[in-house]
Amino acid sequence: MANRERAGAGAVGSAGSLGLRVGQAVFSSAALLFMSVGVEFFSYTAFCFLVTIMGLVIPWSCTLVMIDVYSIFVGCPLRVPGVMAIVVVGDWVLSILSLAAASSSAAVIDVLLQFHGSQCTARLCERYQLSAMMAFLSWFLTAASSLFNLWDIASR
Amino acid sequence: MANRERAGAGAVGSAGSLGLRVGQAVFSSAALLFMSVGVEFFSYTAFCFLVTIMGLVIPWSCTLVMIDVYSIFVGCPLRVPGVMAIVVVGDWVLSILSLAAASSSAAVIDVLLQFHGSQCTARLCERYQLSAMMAFLSWFLTAASSLFNLWDIASR
Repeated sequence: MANRERAGAGAVGSAGSLGLRVGQAVFSSAALLFMSVGVEFFSYTAFCFLVTIMGLVIPWSCTLVMIDVYSIFVGCPLRVPGVMAIVVVGDWVLSILSLAAASSSAAVIDVLLQFHGSQCTARLCERYQLSAMMAFLSWFLTAASSLFNLWDIASR
Repeated sequence: MANRERAGAGAVGSAGSLGLRVGQAVFSSAALLFMSVGVEFFSYTAFCFLVTIMGLVIPWSCTLVMIDVYSIFVGCPLRVPGVMAIVVVGDWVLSILSLAAASSSAAVIDVLLQFHGSQCTARLCERYQLSAMMAFLSWFLTAASSLFNLWDIASR
C-alpha cells in the first residue's frame, strides 16, 4: 500500500491515469472510425496521416489501460524508472503526432469547404470534422498523461 | 557565481537557453517573412494562423533573449520560481500553437499542390513550403526550451 500511495495523481498506476487512458482509447477509436468507415479518406495525405497515428494511439492506450488496471486492482504498481521513461517518451511522441495529424486534418477540411461542392459533400465534411475533433481530444488526454508522468519522474 | 552554476543546461539564464531563443527568433521571423512578404497568404485560414502565431513567437523570444543576455553578461540570474513557471507555460502554449500552425500549413500546401495549377504557382508554393519548414524548426526549439525549463523547475 505504501508503494501505491507514492504514485502521483495521473502517473502510471493511479486511477487518474486509468481514466486518461480509457479516454484516449475511446477518442482515438472514434476518430479512426469516423475517418475510415465508408469514406474515401485516402485521397488526402493529411487524412491518411490521421488514420495512421490513431492506429498507433489505440494499441498504446489499450496496453497502458491493462497496466493501470493491473496496478490498481492487483496492487502491484509498475514503478520501474526505465519503464516510466519509455512511457513518458512514448506519450510525448504520440501526443506530438496526434496534434500534428489533428490540426493538419482540420486545415484540409477548411480548404475543402472553401473549394465547396465537388470536393466535399456536407455529410462527408461533417464526418471529417467529427474525426478531427476526436483526434484533438485524444491529443489533449495524451499530452496530459505525458505531463503527469514526467512530473512524477522529475519530482522523485 | 554559485547561483549561475545552478542554472541547468538550457534553463533560463544559461548559454544553451540563449542559443535556443536566438534560433527561435530567427526561424519564426523567417517563417513570417516567407509567408507574408509579397504573397496573398490571407486567402487560407491556416496561413493566417501561421502568421499570427509567428507574430506572437517573435516578441516572446526576443524578450527572453534579452533576459538571457542580462543573466549571462551582467551575472544576475533570474531564478524566481513564479517567473520560471510563467516562462514554462508560455513556451508550452506557444510550442503547441506553432506545431499546429506549421502542420496545418504543410497540409494545406499539400492539398494546393494536389489541385495543381490555378491555386498555387511553383514559386508561391516553394515559399509556402519554406515558411512551414521554418515554423517547424521554430516549434522544435520552443519545445526544447520548455522541456529544459520544466525539468529545471521539477528537479529542484
